[in-house]
Amino acid sequence: MIHDQRFGLQRHVALPGPLLLDGGGRLSPVEIAYETYGALRPDGGNAVLVCHALTGDQHVASEHPRTGKPGWWTRMVGEGKPIDPSRHFVICANVLGSCMGSSGPASADPAGTGPYAMAFPVITIRDMVRAQAMLLDHLGVGTLAAVVGGSMGGMQALSWAATFPDRVRSCVVIASTARHSAQNIAFHEVGRQAIMADPKWRGGDYYAAGDQPAAGLAVARMAAHITYLSEAGLTEKFGRRLQARPDNPTGAKSFGFDADFQVESYLRHQGIQFVDRFDANSYLYITRALDYFDLAEEHGGRLADAFRGTATRFCLVSFDTDWLYPTAESRRIVQALNAAGAAASFVELSSPYGHDAFLLDTPGLYRVVDGFLKAAA
Amino acid sequence: MIHDQRFGLQRHVALPGPLLLDGGGRLSPVEIAYETYGALRPDGGNAVLVCHALTGDQHVASEHPRTGKPGWWTRMVGEGKPIDPSRHFVICANVLGSCMGSSGPASADPAGTGPYAMAFPVITIRDMVRAQAMLLDHLGVGTLAAVVGGSMGGMQALSWAATFPDRVRSCVVIASTARHSAQNIAFHEVGRQAIMADPKWRGGDYYAAGDQPAAGLAVARMAAHITYLSEAGLTEKFGRRLQARPDNPTGAKSFGFDADFQVESYLRHQGIQFVDRFDANSYLYITRALDYFDLAEEHGGRLADAFRGTATRFCLVSFDTDWLYPTAESRRIVQALNAAGAAASFVELSSPYGHDAFLLDTPGLYRVVDGFLKAAA
Repeated sequence: MIHDQRFGLQRHVALPGPLLLDGGGRLSPVEIAYETYGALRPDGGNAVLVCHALTGDQHVASEHPRTGKPGWWTRMVGEGKPIDPSRHFVICANVLGSCMGSSGPASADPAGTGPYAMAFPVITIRDMVRAQAMLLDHLGVGTLAAVVGGSMGGMQALSWAATFPDRVRSCVVIASTARHSAQNIAFHEVGRQAIMADPKWRGGDYYAAGDQPAAGLAVARMAAHITYLSEAGLTEKFGRRLQARPDNPTGAKSFGFDADFQVESYLRHQGIQFVDRFDANSYLYITRALDYFDLAEEHGGRLADAFRGTATRFCLVSFDTDWLYPTAESRRIVQALNAAGAAASFVELSSPYGHDAFLLDTPGLYRVVDGFLKAAA
Repeated sequence: MIHDQRFGLQRHVALPGPLLLDGGGRLSPVEIAYETYGALRPDGGNAVLVCHALTGDQHVASEHPRTGKPGWWTRMVGEGKPIDPSRHFVICANVLGSCMGSSGPASADPAGTGPYAMAFPVITIRDMVRAQAMLLDHLGVGTLAAVVGGSMGGMQALSWAATFPDRVRSCVVIASTARHSAQNIAFHEVGRQAIMADPKWRGGDYYAAGDQPAAGLAVARMAAHITYLSEAGLTEKFGRRLQARPDNPTGAKSFGFDADFQVESYLRHQGIQFVDRFDANSYLYITRALDYFDLAEEHGGRLADAFRGTATRFCLVSFDTDWLYPTAESRRIVQALNAAGAAASFVELSSPYGHDAFLLDTPGLYRVVDGFLKAAA
């Protein structure tokens, strides 16, 4: 445990490594910031690893030290919730490449005098998973009762099951995919270009100036944010409603370029908030890891071969309005699991919220995961 | 006719106006750059106005003077095509706010010493149409045999029918909508923010420096371009295929931030090409006009009231993979036309190309428009 003046008390470990990376490099040390909730049973059988999404963090069920907001998945993790610290030993680690304490581009480069910046190696989802396995070794956790994640967290869960099948008894994959599609890559590329086009990016070396490419990062977040919501959800939430402002109290069209529409104001707010809590280079690295993700490719091109002979039980959940990782992607995984003879349950839930449904008040979701975890235990 | 050294021979007229704008301002002079093909019959009954989309221009069926590319809709306009200069007097004008010779932010501000820049008034789709009506008056064209457009061109066609019902005998609206949705506005807002975040934008005053906010404009174009294609089309065209480069001849993952994937390379190319032919401020103004577009709102909130008592005949076409202006938007227009007692035909065509289908090799489209125009004549 360390005490960082900016972030308050948090768990952190610097493992010597080296971690051998898919890109060919080696990472040493491997710093991992994480949180745990509950206690490991003497038989070690109650560990649950929760994996976070692109811009998530280890604070799954406790206050975020920078924003002061509650944990990002308190609907899933907590007293009386599907993942319950009174029964489970819950672990959530900041992913490699991120900016909440785990090794990433903002970390000190042991070969240099400052942060890695773009000298940080490009990492993959599997590299993130391997770093988590090192953390579990450190914590004395052998086998996971479950690995659970939504979106990029679901990709890590799949990668866990494929990479360490003997260490995963059950695997919950929500609103996710086994590969990034051309459209997924395209949206991320827009975000990366927005960041790299910002003169403040300076080839990634903006840490000394203490002035990150906030404008570019905000645009990247805005573009991505559209993909997290459904068209119907946007229409319901904002439609074409206009935004009242101090200089425009009736919310009429301004015939100018201020945020006349509520949806414009909302998006700008999302962009501005995001840059206060996230590092632009981390956004580059993690989107790259997502775009590189193709589980079938890692197994000779056949997705089923990622799961041959596995004893892991799988639970997949998709949402009908999720157009980022639509139901067809989950179905494809289920078909591969079936072909591999793995035990898999799958449900498509109805939600107005699009991809973001996995984080929101989607009652069916928590019931499904609760039932699956109880049946698996 | 003028001769501009950059653009070669092109038709251009500066009308005194003033044009009274929806935003309350007045524009004078009203400059309009246009092209015509064919000849007006003595009875004046064969005029067809073609309206272009966001980044389109007047060169519908002749070479673009800057890019040297053929006209953007030679599948629709030309010898033996649905709109045929041997039968029709075809007119296509650069829209107000654009940058190909019609009045826009890059035009000289008569009240100042240089270009308008952001002093150019915010304009609407209806303002564009009113300017076109002034051009028709100048050309001696009373009634249009047809007004035809796709995407933003379709919005102009609808606005023509609603604003000047006595001057439009038939109206062809392709891959379009009667209003911009929250998601449509959101994507445009990302583009505008990308432009305005570019330090070279300088509040719009970049003309003297001769150095426009190309990086921001390219990002805006990339984001918009994704919405023009279908997810399935992107998958078919690019999938996850990697891009061979001189420094990476086998097209392997580089574990870096170059354009590894073909879709990244394609999008970057789209962005770079675009900034050579388009003005960033024009992009702001025209996207604003699109976002403001809501034909029902201009008619007391009931779309049918835009078409009460009209004698115009309508033809609507949508594409099943168009998620920018999906079929439901065309259906909504047809329902309003039916409620207004207007003659309307509607077809949804199947295409892998998404929104861009209206510009591409979509055989059904040209057959439908040909049949409609011949039946109307």
